[in-house]
Amino acid sequence: MNDRVSINECFARDGLQHESAFVPTAKKLAVLASFTGAGFRRIEATSYSHPKQVPAFTDASELLSALPRREGISFKATCPNQKAVQRALADAEAGYGADEISLLTSASNSHSQVNLRASRLEQWQKVEEMAAIAAGNFTLVGVVSVAFGCPFEGAIDPQIVIDDVARFRDLGAGYVTIGDTTGLADPAAAKRLFAELVPAFPELTIVAHFHDTRGLGIANIMAAYEAGCRSFDSAMGGVGGHPNMIHYGSGSTGNVATEDTVNLFDSLGVDTGLDLDAVMEASAECESILGRTLLSKTARAGLANTILREADVA
Amino acid sequence: MNDRVSINECFARDGLQHESAFVPTAKKLAVLASFTGAGFRRIEATSYSHPKQVPAFTDASELLSALPRREGISFKATCPNQKAVQRALADAEAGYGADEISLLTSASNSHSQVNLRASRLEQWQKVEEMAAIAAGNFTLVGVVSVAFGCPFEGAIDPQIVIDDVARFRDLGAGYVTIGDTTGLADPAAAKRLFAELVPAFPELTIVAHFHDTRGLGIANIMAAYEAGCRSFDSAMGGVGGHPNMIHYGSGSTGNVATEDTVNLFDSLGVDTGLDLDAVMEASAECESILGRTLLSKTARAGLANTILREADVA
Repeated sequence: MNDRVSINECFARDGLQHESAFVPTAKKLAVLASFTGAGFRRIEATSYSHPKQVPAFTDASELLSALPRREGISFKATCPNQKAVQRALADAEAGYGADEISLLTSASNSHSQVNLRASRLEQWQKVEEMAAIAAGNFTLVGVVSVAFGCPFEGAIDPQIVIDDVARFRDLGAGYVTIGDTTGLADPAAAKRLFAELVPAFPELTIVAHFHDTRGLGIANIMAAYEAGCRSFDSAMGGVGGHPNMIHYGSGSTGNVATEDTVNLFDSLGVDTGLDLDAVMEASAECESILGRTLLSKTARAGLANTILREADVA
Repeated sequence: MNDRVSINECFARDGLQHESAFVPTAKKLAVLASFTGAGFRRIEATSYSHPKQVPAFTDASELLSALPRREGISFKATCPNQKAVQRALADAEAGYGADEISLLTSASNSHSQVNLRASRLEQWQKVEEMAAIAAGNFTLVGVVSVAFGCPFEGAIDPQIVIDDVARFRDLGAGYVTIGDTTGLADPAAAKRLFAELVPAFPELTIVAHFHDTRGLGIANIMAAYEAGCRSFDSAMGGVGGHPNMIHYGSGSTGNVATEDTVNLFDSLGVDTGLDLDAVMEASAECESILGRTLLSKTARAGLANTILREADVA
């Protein structure tokens, strides 16, 4: 198991989306620099959400215009609607902006209505329009939410997800992210779905985006990896996710912590392409920026291989 | 994957061991009753530790004498030394006491010295004496700590663990618990070791005891299950473990949360023999007794299948 994996760092967008306090642009830039320094090659940078809907990203254009670009590093911006894509395009025309934009869908109609304020049919029409506007300017990232189960509708037929991935492929997407939005996946279901998706779409990168709602996030990543998936979303400190979206508003659900994901792959001997010390420094910087202890256990305990190596030397 | 698994509930011993406030005996008895009511069949009840060393268990004999016995339920008491076994025997002769006693060893000499104040050689001599005293009166549970790596010595040769399991077998143990004491296991290592141990010792029940030090606990349980292990230790709320034992005293490390373990197996369709609603009620009772929110994510979010079923009905 020595295949290289790509960990897409989601702290700056999915992570910060639900933070009550606005993180100043300079601090975001500093933390994004720590991510590129640590070797992350795909990084969620911001969202072109409506500034009144998601105040965390009022600085989307300002942030992207100030973001130092480096060959081989891809910054992603979320585009929830056509207006967002137009803003992304305007930034691109001004000579800066995101490399990737993500377009959102839900595998269930009810979640689509609640999260995107559109039925699946309506949302797919919007996505087609957005993809047409964006074509040629960005790498498109399709997102399929609640792919492993919906808190409103229950089980999701995997064929819906497979068909949605095919639609994103037909729209020219480079990546499709399979979202376990409220943590209803399990390792067996994850293995089954990724074992179908990965070989079925060789022209796409299939990305696993698990939430750790019930503590199964890392186990599901492991299962997806065993099924051939090599691209994973996670967020430093396990922040973000959909805190109000588990079950009619109760409970909380967060991203899988990047530090724990890195520890998993490092322990397995799987190359992440990351500078592990720099990952842990970036982790500390994320805690410093948010001013609280975040949820990664590895951030507290250290990477297992680091402990083992130090013990060997001692 | 429909084999039945046994989840051994460790809250009342491994969980409470490091609590600063003494939990009154009546409350322990109430929570143990909630565990038996939920269907747990192996339950860590207490420890015959020296009362001055571990004040949490000064009431070991009182607790065991008041514990209602039921056919098919096995209560375990930890016995760290010969004196402890003698106390366990005295209780047994008085007509009550534990069904199982656990005898502790470490796979590394350094951890043995720190945790048991004896070299491996000395500890094995003690364990042989303890097993001889206990023979015929209890089911013996051998424990091999730091089986996947030692914070002081680094990597552990799996052959040491295999040999230690064989020694416990030769001493008449019914169970041998493989402890990842400071969370240095990963799913590949877990799968390798349990795939060796389970078929090699058909006369024993091999128990997986993972700590969630780096967030890999559930992934390791999944891997051990895939390797044939069917018996798992966990503690309600993920409390306990060895909070001061990660790496020369820094950080914290806890048991895997029973609620998250139950959610894993329930999601996989693996029978735990447990009443799931009663498990969640027992979980709430553990939080109530300790007066704080504990670490299980499933305790906050609910069991995935419960959410999916309710959504189907809605």
